[in-house]
Amino acid sequence: MKNYFSSNFKLGVLGGGQLGKMLLTETQKLDIYTSILDKSEDAPCAQICNEFHLGDLLDYDTVYNFGKTVDLLTIEIENVNIDALDQLQKEGLPIYPKPENLRVIQNKAQQKKFYKDHNIPTADFTHFAYLEELKHSYENGLIEFPFVWKSARFGYDGNGVKVVKSYADLEGLPEGECIAEKLVPFKNELAVIVARNQKGEIKTYPVVEMEFHPEANQVEYVICPARIDDTVAKKAREVALKVADEFGFIGLLAVEMFQTQEDEILVNEAAPRTHNSGHYTIEASYTSQFEQHVRSILNLPLGNTDSKVAGIMVNLVGAEGHTGDVIYENMENILEIEGVTPHIYGKKHTKPFRKMGHVTIVNEDINKARALAQQVKETVKVISK
Amino acid sequence: MKNYFSSNFKLGVLGGGQLGKMLLTETQKLDIYTSILDKSEDAPCAQICNEFHLGDLLDYDTVYNFGKTVDLLTIEIENVNIDALDQLQKEGLPIYPKPENLRVIQNKAQQKKFYKDHNIPTADFTHFAYLEELKHSYENGLIEFPFVWKSARFGYDGNGVKVVKSYADLEGLPEGECIAEKLVPFKNELAVIVARNQKGEIKTYPVVEMEFHPEANQVEYVICPARIDDTVAKKAREVALKVADEFGFIGLLAVEMFQTQEDEILVNEAAPRTHNSGHYTIEASYTSQFEQHVRSILNLPLGNTDSKVAGIMVNLVGAEGHTGDVIYENMENILEIEGVTPHIYGKKHTKPFRKMGHVTIVNEDINKARALAQQVKETVKVISK
Repeated sequence: MKNYFSSNFKLGVLGGGQLGKMLLTETQKLDIYTSILDKSEDAPCAQICNEFHLGDLLDYDTVYNFGKTVDLLTIEIENVNIDALDQLQKEGLPIYPKPENLRVIQNKAQQKKFYKDHNIPTADFTHFAYLEELKHSYENGLIEFPFVWKSARFGYDGNGVKVVKSYADLEGLPEGECIAEKLVPFKNELAVIVARNQKGEIKTYPVVEMEFHPEANQVEYVICPARIDDTVAKKAREVALKVADEFGFIGLLAVEMFQTQEDEILVNEAAPRTHNSGHYTIEASYTSQFEQHVRSILNLPLGNTDSKVAGIMVNLVGAEGHTGDVIYENMENILEIEGVTPHIYGKKHTKPFRKMGHVTIVNEDINKARALAQQVKETVKVISK
Repeated sequence: MKNYFSSNFKLGVLGGGQLGKMLLTETQKLDIYTSILDKSEDAPCAQICNEFHLGDLLDYDTVYNFGKTVDLLTIEIENVNIDALDQLQKEGLPIYPKPENLRVIQNKAQQKKFYKDHNIPTADFTHFAYLEELKHSYENGLIEFPFVWKSARFGYDGNGVKVVKSYADLEGLPEGECIAEKLVPFKNELAVIVARNQKGEIKTYPVVEMEFHPEANQVEYVICPARIDDTVAKKAREVALKVADEFGFIGLLAVEMFQTQEDEILVNEAAPRTHNSGHYTIEASYTSQFEQHVRSILNLPLGNTDSKVAGIMVNLVGAEGHTGDVIYENMENILEIEGVTPHIYGKKHTKPFRKMGHVTIVNEDINKARALAQQVKETVKVISK
């Protein structure tokens, strides 16, 4: 094994947002020297990493040159320049997750095609190189309202996804490569995080259940364990495992899924990194997803994915009507609630629905945790001065 | 409540060692801007705090000038210039723990006198202004071998404490103010961490049991919960609570105690800060001692001190015969063990018995945890290149 701890080994991370910041907690814990590339000098990681580089993650030269300064490269966001990663890998730099996996996942049409090609259950879809093709398909009666439009590239937090119910909706869509997906009525939206290292050791976290904010299309509560049948949970973990296995994935893969009315599991999409649906692991699990990410990319033994207690996560998003320097209102009140841990990402500026932090609520009793989570959500407000 | 999160509020910390580093994990989590003063530019905190100042913690001007740059001051080590703190407090700076408490605790003779004056059970002792006085006392038959000699000032990790069994031992003692304490045969060495905030809210962590390395006089295992009778545990928590209450303490106070053969509880000494005996809380407790420290000094509600699971801590100290750049041997092997979390403090240089890190082992079953802890201890080695 390489000597990673208190050594000259340098871990490079593309992206310095909140996921990077929570990763730094783990690299600090293990004293792994960490260098970060991000386009903003106000990035949450900027002040607290060992080394910070300012630059555009989508620019070939920037990513390539950054890669040449580190011993192993990973990501905290998937929208990065893959051509540069390919070249770095060719020159011998270990990069996890692998660039070829990132390329497939980065493009939602290719990602869906991958699932279809590998017999991974997913909703039916049609792929269009241009929006115009989608319109023609509709006009020729090949697709019907309602359907789910997804931009092939750079969707994030519900941007790039829209339920299209009318011609007006269709007219309002942005240009570009996209897919039209069958709208599947579902009981639950679930997620499973899978960790896999180079040795091929693979582990899944328990199934979590997600509740979305109806307007903002952002996750409102993440609940672990999901309140579903064991057979459905088992199926969800198996499907997630299959996705990671078929990719030959190295690192953390968050697989989002639908539980249909018929208790089928359909893969919605996967994220090749630590994920909002795994934040609860910091307080609830034997191994947090961020430590697991470090273990998996460094080919260390994977940690126990079981939970010590039930965990629920509430996102702290900017309140509507508030734009400006942030204030967290009623923080003192939520700190009075048992088992509550706030995480403040360090963004100085709030705007409506911006992810500013999250709060984890843990309890031995999941129903108690759910009630306290509601209380947290109704109490704390992210407003501007 | 003050706005501490993502704000202009600046927390100052005297000391930038491993306790400071683990505190930074919490201030980063809550995005509380943190400025550190330490005498070494290689201090574990140096690279990862918001602001780092280089300087001597025992120098009046250095501590005073640092204090003038922050909004609230705390410590991670008690050996600091108290005169400077007194002046800063007089000028209106909030300082927790309070300088007057630090002054008493810093001097072991004064600390013991405090216990005696406040009816807190502690072993009998005699106070000497000079070593010569102690020698005269012995020669005049006023004290007998064996007794425990303690330097009044600047003892740390077993330095400044010696069991004196013979005249040769007595001859070998260093000069200076000291106490001679009755050697009490004890069943167990216990510790309880107490948190108290300005509002007077007060909470104790469960009693932990400590096992010491016989030669190095450093803690080898810290076990939570202590495997003792409930009545003894209750008494230990009550005694610790009384110590914090009598001090009117604000912050975290770690109270080390002896359980005598007769199940009496005697206070050995207290540390006015986060403590090695509380490291297990990071993985095992609802609220880690470092988060609790932040909560208590900022007058926020205190968190739940209960444990989610049993926790055992093993110190990682430099192996004998090894001095130089550090290597953590067999880290991969301990990471394979269930429920194991290593903490590497980031000291580049190892020497025999230097505290380089610790490992926490958590498990639902404390006996299983104890067995795994032994395995960890026998496997990992802190050596030099």
